[in-house]
Amino acid sequence: MKLVLEKAVDFQKSIAAISVLIDEAEFILDENALILKATDPSQISMIDFELSKGSFKEYSVESKMKLGMDLDYLNQIMSRAKSTDMLSLELSEDKSRLIVQFKGASTRRFQVPLIDISSVELPNPKIDFDATVKLKAAVLQDALKDAALISSHVSFGVESDKFFVKANSSKGSLENETKKDDKNLIELNASSPASSMFPLDYLRDMLKVPSGDAEVSIKLKSNAPVELSYSIGAASLTYFLAPRIESE
Amino acid sequence: MKLVLEKAVDFQKSIAAISVLIDEAEFILDENALILKATDPSQISMIDFELSKGSFKEYSVESKMKLGMDLDYLNQIMSRAKSTDMLSLELSEDKSRLIVQFKGASTRRFQVPLIDISSVELPNPKIDFDATVKLKAAVLQDALKDAALISSHVSFGVESDKFFVKANSSKGSLENETKKDDKNLIELNASSPASSMFPLDYLRDMLKVPSGDAEVSIKLKSNAPVELSYSIGAASLTYFLAPRIESE
Amino acid sequence: MKLVLEKAVDFQKSIAAISVLIDEAEFILDENALILKATDPSQISMIDFELSKGSFKEYSVESKMKLGMDLDYLNQIMSRAKSTDMLSLELSEDKSRLIVQFKGASTRRFQVPLIDISSVELPNPKIDFDATVKLKAAVLQDALKDAALISSHVSFGVESDKFFVKANSSKGSLENETKKDDKNLIELNASSPASSMFPLDYLRDMLKVPSGDAEVSIKLKSNAPVELSYSIGAASLTYFLAPRIESE
Repeated sequence: MKLVLEKAVDFQKSIAAISVLIDEAEFILDENALILKATDPSQISMIDFELSKGSFKEYSVESKMKLGMDLDYLNQIMSRAKSTDMLSLELSEDKSRLIVQFKGASTRRFQVPLIDISSVELPNPKIDFDATVKLKAAVLQDALKDAALISSHVSFGVESDKFFVKANSSKGSLENETKKDDKNLIELNASSPASSMFPLDYLRDMLKVPSGDAEVSIKLKSNAPVELSYSIGAASLTYFLAPRIESE
Repeated sequence: MKLVLEKAVDFQKSIAAISVLIDEAEFILDENALILKATDPSQISMIDFELSKGSFKEYSVESKMKLGMDLDYLNQIMSRAKSTDMLSLELSEDKSRLIVQFKGASTRRFQVPLIDISSVELPNPKIDFDATVKLKAAVLQDALKDAALISSHVSFGVESDKFFVKANSSKGSLENETKKDDKNLIELNASSPASSMFPLDYLRDMLKVPSGDAEVSIKLKSNAPVELSYSIGAASLTYFLAPRIESE
Repeated sequence: MKLVLEKAVDFQKSIAAISVLIDEAEFILDENALILKATDPSQISMIDFELSKGSFKEYSVESKMKLGMDLDYLNQIMSRAKSTDMLSLELSEDKSRLIVQFKGASTRRFQVPLIDISSVELPNPKIDFDATVKLKAAVLQDALKDAALISSHVSFGVESDKFFVKANSSKGSLENETKKDDKNLIELNASSPASSMFPLDYLRDMLKVPSGDAEVSIKLKSNAPVELSYSIGAASLTYFLAPRIESE
């Protein structure tokens, strides 16, 4: 098995975005793609990460394999990638370690121990969403900072002409509205209005890595999990997050 | 009551400059201006903040009113203002909350609870100052950082040809002199030399918000409170600070 | 005694580089140079600092003298130097304090107490090194950050065609290689291969101050102290660091 990626920083950002929620997980490699699906320890959120074969400069995987990793440690290693580094991933001869090599001005080889994780394959939740919004990450990142002043929970909602974020508590309240004609709102489709309340910390973690300019897609249905997705280079990341069922 | 200010960030900086010293206070609104006068909890310092009617894009105040606020919380809300946001302040229908609205790319409405503060109106201290200095904030900010290495108290002084900052302790001593011909010293008038010692932390707090390039005016009289003032946009902020009477 | 240095920041950086390892030490001034030689409290490392008479704008030292200083405190004072400040060092009249004066836009005079330190003069270790490398500080600073993910010890080594940094532990391993033709490697001479293991924290402290672009010279002999040196303006700093004798 050998994978070579032209831009180590794309993989770096992906791992950063995953490890903020997940401590340990298995990468699954088959002939088509590198995949990681996992729930956070509390099982409130789920991540679905995929980097297809075509994104790699070299992709040789003989047979389907699973590589269990301490994602926090892998994230520390990946954070040492420089902007011009190329990344190669190989197994050590005894197959107990992943060799992570950065090649740029100098060559740096890390060996990261693999760990045993007995995981079941997770299906993505099947939800018949009522509304889809595409907007700049900055809108959400800002709204979450606003809401953090008020409460540890936040409502995302869509009406025919706007996307809104609300928070309420004895400390006060927040309403953050982005209208359909706002340049930061790229797409808004709603078969009916939808709104759900979510734990703020999880949303914050999910939106930590993308730059403010990145496009984020949100799918909503009242009192159902939200699907939140974006791309990092050729990698696609999709998050699901369970709602807080009780109404405000 | 409705107030609209073109630049939310000017109000943001003013609140930051006030809340660093004062926890809770009443804004007083009458037909002419928005005013806040308060002493810090230890009553060693006093602030006098004023933003006149003319500075507002819209200023409708039916009758004199007092709005008690947790300034630390208001500061957190105001810190969410963006550089292009417009600010509007209104009362909620039941008059229990202040509606703080930022309008820029998106519209964000915070509701901030009003609190009951029974305050007496404070007159500004009447002092017949011996000396006035106008200088760039950076001179003072730097001198206070210098002095912090030596002591928790610092002396400000004026002679006919210079402004000086001194600190003394068993750890060593500091003398920081700015001569009349220095480009950072804009004005210096002294009917007689004057010098007083002040607690360093308070001065630091008073000078936290203005940029190094801002003009600060200082009025001094030996063993009397110092008056320190500057503007933020159309707002004027004046601080008084009691001296430490014992000599060095 | 009076010393005047055109650029206070050069002395500032030198003191920063020394004080990171040494708490108290004596400056020795004679007719030729300002010198400081000291070992760290654990005696694992040694520093040799020299600033020759010719580097000063004014250098008047009547007779050899020793000035004992709390280097951490001197570093705090020196950190207040501005980029355009000139530095002058004098003794107070009673010879109990060093007067440190910064002269730029304003004039700032600190008085720093001298302290009594009975020190013996240290000879530099005499080592017949096998290899010399000159490279950009950034290579080392990066390699140490890489290695910190793995272990608290790191090996520096030279072969005929490359300089390498290695670290090993149960957490994984790192190999960082810089080849002879790399533009960040300025010079590499080895009469025989050489490699030694050192405590990472000390190396990090020694490389804290120089910018990534600075030239650092390393002299190595297997299982012997490393000599690491660089210049800050006209000042030369040389560090020695004892190896960890046991093999990896």
